[in-house]
Amino acid sequence: MARKTSSVRRARPNAAPDLGALNDRLGYFVRRLQVWIFQDFIRRLARLDLSPAQFSVIVVIGANPGLSQAELAETLGIERARLVRLLHRLERRGLTQRRASRSDGRRHALELTREGRTVLAAAERLAGQHEDVLREKLGARRYRTLLNVLRAV
Amino acid sequence: MARKTSSVRRARPNAAPDLGALNDRLGYFVRRLQVWIFQDFIRRLARLDLSPAQFSVIVVIGANPGLSQAELAETLGIERARLVRLLHRLERRGLTQRRASRSDGRRHALELTREGRTVLAAAERLAGQHEDVLREKLGARRYRTLLNVLRAV
Repeated sequence: MARKTSSVRRARPNAAPDLGALNDRLGYFVRRLQVWIFQDFIRRLARLDLSPAQFSVIVVIGANPGLSQAELAETLGIERARLVRLLHRLERRGLTQRRASRSDGRRHALELTREGRTVLAAAERLAGQHEDVLREKLGARRYRTLLNVLRAV
Repeated sequence: MARKTSSVRRARPNAAPDLGALNDRLGYFVRRLQVWIFQDFIRRLARLDLSPAQFSVIVVIGANPGLSQAELAETLGIERARLVRLLHRLERRGLTQRRASRSDGRRHALELTREGRTVLAAAERLAGQHEDVLREKLGARRYRTLLNVLRAV
């Protein structure tokens, strides 16, 4: 790459660069917060070898034992093919199981195994710590506002 | 996998499954919104072959011509190694260029090329359409609340 001497001068060479039009983009700020959240969350859950998506899957199965794969996909907004892979991995680790539903033999009812319930309890504790740190980072008032607004979407 | 008949009965078999403890997790709702945002944004910017990260890089260079790689990394919260790869791709496409800074020859001043400015203008229009759709999805009041709160973080 040829290096030329720049004829451009910064208007305020000692000022911090500004975000330009990103300053008016909600999408940008949601992304920034989400990156922070994932970094902290992934680090905390790593000791259980659980990804954020795997965590949300076992939480929802734990709260709705017997639900179907279709219901789970719909509830979490996860694409079916991706959910199948997620469930396969969790099943191989012995955390979840699929059984034929009593009311409809063609339908699979999802459940946590005993091991799955143990891992879920440990993951909930770590997720609670993550949420505490997030609340502290944002301030309790902003945290509450964001939770109320986003939950209502 | 062995299929057994499930002995589990859903408490409310016809009710929609609930999110369990995810209902109290801000991290979960930020992630859900962010997934929606990325899907829409990536689809819109695809016609310019720009990723969300590439878009934010050219916006900030456009708003701060002559800034350094270190300043750009700091402003966007992007890891240095990743930024180097991003800039390399943008430079190869002829959208950005690095010049030796006039005030400090060891420092690279980043600029958009003429083609970079043209692509940025087109990208800004598409990003504006994305932001309009996001505002419509959330409702103007929620949109404004989220932008104010997240910008202040």
